Amino acid sequence: MASMATFFTKTSYPTHSFPKINNTHFAPTFKFNVSLGSKKKTNQRLRISCRLIEPDGGKLVELLVEESQVDWKKKEALSLPSIKLSRIDIQWVHVLSEGWASPLRGFMKQSEFLQTLHFNSLRLDDGSVVNMSVPIVLAIDDSQKHRIGESSKVALFDSNGNPIAILKDIEIYKHPKEERIARTWGTTAPGLPYVDEAITHAGNWLIGGDLEVIEPIKYHDGLDRFRLSPAELCEEFTRRNADAVFAFQLRNPVHNGHALLMTDTRRRLLDMGYKNPILLLHPLGGYTKADDVPLSWRMKQHEKVLEDGVLDPETTVVSIFPSPMHYAGPTEVQWHAKARINAGADFYIVGRDPAGMGHPVEKRDLYDADHGKKVLSMAPGLERLNILPFRVAAYDKTQGRMAFFDPSRPQDFVFISGTKMRTLARNKENPPDGFMCPGGWKVLVDYYDSLVPAGSEKVPETVPA
Amino acid sequence: MASMATFFTKTSYPTHSFPKINNTHFAPTFKFNVSLGSKKKTNQRLRISCRLIEPDGGKLVELLVEESQVDWKKKEALSLPSIKLSRIDIQWVHVLSEGWASPLRGFMKQSEFLQTLHFNSLRLDDGSVVNMSVPIVLAIDDSQKHRIGESSKVALFDSNGNPIAILKDIEIYKHPKEERIARTWGTTAPGLPYVDEAITHAGNWLIGGDLEVIEPIKYHDGLDRFRLSPAELCEEFTRRNADAVFAFQLRNPVHNGHALLMTDTRRRLLDMGYKNPILLLHPLGGYTKADDVPLSWRMKQHEKVLEDGVLDPETTVVSIFPSPMHYAGPTEVQWHAKARINAGADFYIVGRDPAGMGHPVEKRDLYDADHGKKVLSMAPGLERLNILPFRVAAYDKTQGRMAFFDPSRPQDFVFISGTKMRTLARNKENPPDGFMCPGGWKVLVDYYDSLVPAGSEKVPETVPA
Repeated sequence: MASMATFFTKTSYPTHSFPKINNTHFAPTFKFNVSLGSKKKTNQRLRISCRLIEPDGGKLVELLVEESQVDWKKKEALSLPSIKLSRIDIQWVHVLSEGWASPLRGFMKQSEFLQTLHFNSLRLDDGSVVNMSVPIVLAIDDSQKHRIGESSKVALFDSNGNPIAILKDIEIYKHPKEERIARTWGTTAPGLPYVDEAITHAGNWLIGGDLEVIEPIKYHDGLDRFRLSPAELCEEFTRRNADAVFAFQLRNPVHNGHALLMTDTRRRLLDMGYKNPILLLHPLGGYTKADDVPLSWRMKQHEKVLEDGVLDPETTVVSIFPSPMHYAGPTEVQWHAKARINAGADFYIVGRDPAGMGHPVEKRDLYDADHGKKVLSMAPGLERLNILPFRVAAYDKTQGRMAFFDPSRPQDFVFISGTKMRTLARNKENPPDGFMCPGGWKVLVDYYDSLVPAGSEKVPETVPA
Repeated sequence: MASMATFFTKTSYPTHSFPKINNTHFAPTFKFNVSLGSKKKTNQRLRISCRLIEPDGGKLVELLVEESQVDWKKKEALSLPSIKLSRIDIQWVHVLSEGWASPLRGFMKQSEFLQTLHFNSLRLDDGSVVNMSVPIVLAIDDSQKHRIGESSKVALFDSNGNPIAILKDIEIYKHPKEERIARTWGTTAPGLPYVDEAITHAGNWLIGGDLEVIEPIKYHDGLDRFRLSPAELCEEFTRRNADAVFAFQLRNPVHNGHALLMTDTRRRLLDMGYKNPILLLHPLGGYTKADDVPLSWRMKQHEKVLEDGVLDPETTVVSIFPSPMHYAGPTEVQWHAKARINAGADFYIVGRDPAGMGHPVEKRDLYDADHGKKVLSMAPGLERLNILPFRVAAYDKTQGRMAFFDPSRPQDFVFISGTKMRTLARNKENPPDGFMCPGGWKVLVDYYDSLVPAGSEKVPETVPA
């Protein structure tokens, strides 16, 4: 490790500081190269040397075309049958382009789709197995299929008509929506957010193939600088001399229970003999359901948590995971874990009811709260990843702070659910002292304040979600 | 092989001939030991020596208690909390007791249930993977759970109050019916036969554990002699000097298209260099839906097919597979194949839309007709099994017989679906000459004749199923 670290320290890259957070403690040493040309060179070196855990399939699959090919590929795209991508489609192109789903080289063909639905894993040519639990597919309708005809390639465009990628060696096959939904979510109840958004009204065909992504996917929302690719994350972990990386997936504001968990995990890793475990605090940045806190507000809240010193910026990397959210519980948590292997994390923290939500029709949670961690611990292709089950944290009234729940004195603890937290923030009420750092709480209150129309009253507590 | 065959030929077992079929060509050389005591001894030898393919987990798991323990176990059963088994539950006890589901040792615990639902496979302690695609579970209701209390064992009884088995080291966990149905069938549409029969009204808990089966499961329907266990089948294959065994799962009458396929498969195996491939013609004998032809009539029909010389009795073993039918398409076909590995078959013939049926609500087949064979070819744990995809046979009008479909002259072929066949038989109409042997067809006509109330008219063709 020492020699590797030296190698990277000595290498002089053009660097890019985060302008907005330079004077906060938000990842103060968080500098990395974002110039595409030299990034590519860097990544190739990284693939060889930086990793604590090999990417699935042995090699990080990046699908961006060479810079010298960009103009030519744009021209080629204009000559091909075209498909207009939805917002979620583009998020998947982003995911695929950077290798989060390695070894996938593009939207799934039928063989990959069927293996994903039935086995949550893919068997590779060499007989090895990688995890793959959610279908990453592109739907087209009858008229698009007709227009594609016998072409072996199509071009993918964004809603403004900009060419995003070329999909080659295509295969078009039926989109069995009901079966896809049933096998992915374990229910076909109406009201699943991703299904309503991306499947119900999608075309009856799926088109798979190999992607050539013309330019890096950017969202121009002020947050692109936080969207580190797996290769960039690896580089950052190496720069920090990490000898363990533990990933924490989240799509909610960070409270002190989360912070306790993350701090405690680092302590446990130190106890295990690691010298410098690094936390990857990795909020999901793609599609989320309407009542989740939007990414921009979550990022502000996470920034405050680091500013307030609740987490140590020296040992924490905050970055955005570009995947859309399925809310598919035990099926989806595998995807969340697998993608982090590809980003170089060798430990993954799994909580209660990961990627879960309320049943859309019945008055219960959609998934058993324990199934996620059980399924994750048994999932094919994830044997190499160290799974760290979440210890339940709750507000300890006797200490006035979040603490690990002690079943011998349950009366001393208050559980504050995400729903409860959101309801308090909406109503501008304060949570118990020590639940969340004041700066972080203020961000939440401000967010709900920005939503509430003038003159409206307190928001009642909603059904748990 | 030669020495093994000699070993078995020399061994002098008490044998049991099929009384009813002794004067037909139905498995004329089909003799085997059915006396329990010596069967056990035989099986132990078989496990060591006879197999062309190892059972899953390396060892055939048989769950019958030693004969010397039977009385004691019956007594013990009377002292334990009791569960009354349904007809289908008993079929699963049968399946488990003989090792069709090896290495399962009883009804699934939660870890096995979750792996089955999510991965269609189980990871064993040594890291190896076996296929397991349908949940083999036992449901209990709240009051049964309450009665079991803290007991670590329960006794299982049939509807007449006879003790069937003891389930020990039990684990009780929630029965997530909707999720089980969605992940097993890929739909939750109302009207799935197995769901209606065995899940919808079942209890909200599942109880797993290790089975001690007190006596061999018998049905006393005149067909028990055809219900060979995996160990008995292995013995039979060895007795016949098989160097390849190809299994054909069916739940329908055999027509000449099936026969052509089986004969052609044998020819292909001979071409591959095998000297004595044996066909395991293996009708499913457990629960089937109401409009399928019942087992007893199917067995009569199969007998006629062998009598008429359509299949060669010298190279065919007809036996009953005791499993209930799920009609779960690509998920279930894996179970059908996996169970035959445990019975010693190293080749498995897979047809169009295996274990499929019409969608219970929509006007289409529930599964894509090609998914079954694709999923089977990719299924974890079945890599050792040789999958033989079905070639489509149809009635060739130019030859007046069933032949493999020739896509260059489609106009010459007539496809006769199972539905069409059943409708013809119901209406006492004849199929084209050469579709099915006359003796077999007569059995079908007789069956429908036995159903039609006096004075009723022709039955219209039903929706394809």
